[in-house]
Amino acid sequence: MKELKEAILKYGVGIGDSIVKVDSFLNHRIDVELSTLMGRDIAAHFTGKQIDIVLTVESSGIAVAMTTAQALGNIPVVFARKSTSLNVGPDVYTAQVYSFTRQVLNTIRVSKAYLPAGSRVLVVDDFLANGAAIEGMRDILTQAGCELAGAAVCVEKGFQAGGSRLRASGIDLYSLAIVDGIDNGKILLRED
Amino acid sequence: MKELKEAILKYGVGIGDSIVKVDSFLNHRIDVELSTLMGRDIAAHFTGKQIDIVLTVESSGIAVAMTTAQALGNIPVVFARKSTSLNVGPDVYTAQVYSFTRQVLNTIRVSKAYLPAGSRVLVVDDFLANGAAIEGMRDILTQAGCELAGAAVCVEKGFQAGGSRLRASGIDLYSLAIVDGIDNGKILLRED
Repeated sequence: MKELKEAILKYGVGIGDSIVKVDSFLNHRIDVELSTLMGRDIAAHFTGKQIDIVLTVESSGIAVAMTTAQALGNIPVVFARKSTSLNVGPDVYTAQVYSFTRQVLNTIRVSKAYLPAGSRVLVVDDFLANGAAIEGMRDILTQAGCELAGAAVCVEKGFQAGGSRLRASGIDLYSLAIVDGIDNGKILLRED
Repeated sequence: MKELKEAILKYGVGIGDSIVKVDSFLNHRIDVELSTLMGRDIAAHFTGKQIDIVLTVESSGIAVAMTTAQALGNIPVVFARKSTSLNVGPDVYTAQVYSFTRQVLNTIRVSKAYLPAGSRVLVVDDFLANGAAIEGMRDILTQAGCELAGAAVCVEKGFQAGGSRLRASGIDLYSLAIVDGIDNGKILLRED
């Protein structure tokens, strides 16, 4: 997606050989106009898929999940929790997810009530690296008897294995920008 | 705000004498249309205040921060982090916040780069109970040399001390719904 790629090239910072720092517009400070455009772009890609629910995982996925759900006609967003909370009851689906950016193993949780069996669910996240978050959400959707209609991420790290593995498993995965590597701090984006 | 109050009365669940469970539309599953309306309502309340940034804290505040920022003309959202992450650098403002719902003490962090001195900031959150989250964000804004233009929350627990204390300290605090108590599971809302 053109606007996201421009923002990555203008404001993104490559650190070492694997960290893509885009917290100035994507996952700490949020460029709301860009987020709204990304939501529209994702919704357009999945036109005709009859999505019922957008599923993401806290926290960085919530913004683009919201704008995607708005563009899909104000369908509900459900965000998986990483920690126990009084806001989430005991009747939950869970999955184990290793976070690349935080370097911790999280249990993600979704209340069973909010994933009715038979729902067609679009999974959305800000980043895709090793694919663990999306695989965790897929695991939860399988438990719930929901259909994974597709997955969308803002930034895919094309030099890590997640994207290839998810596509090989048959998921309709849509990445708005794919980073192929970092060269002396410069982020290298894949051409369309 | 009428639509939120109707949703609380229809879908909210009162537990014990203090838990207001609204995770079916506010902070686990999100009613995106209602969230969009809440954002517009908050933006209308602060018309003329020349807000530059919407500040919230992960995770439950992000949705309504996004819709508020959209309604304020696509101004940026910044969300404070509760945990360390590779996505947030070392150059941060921090504050200590006790979470009533999670019953833990969190350090919240905002990168200094995203709160330029002199900015007029609207603080937004889903819930207000003891007021610790908003006080923590106010603390960070003071460190940053920003102006707290106001605060908005979806649900204020009027039977806890936070709202009164924040108003007494001079904050322009706007609550879309105020819960005055729970009576045998029934949520009691304050009349306008």
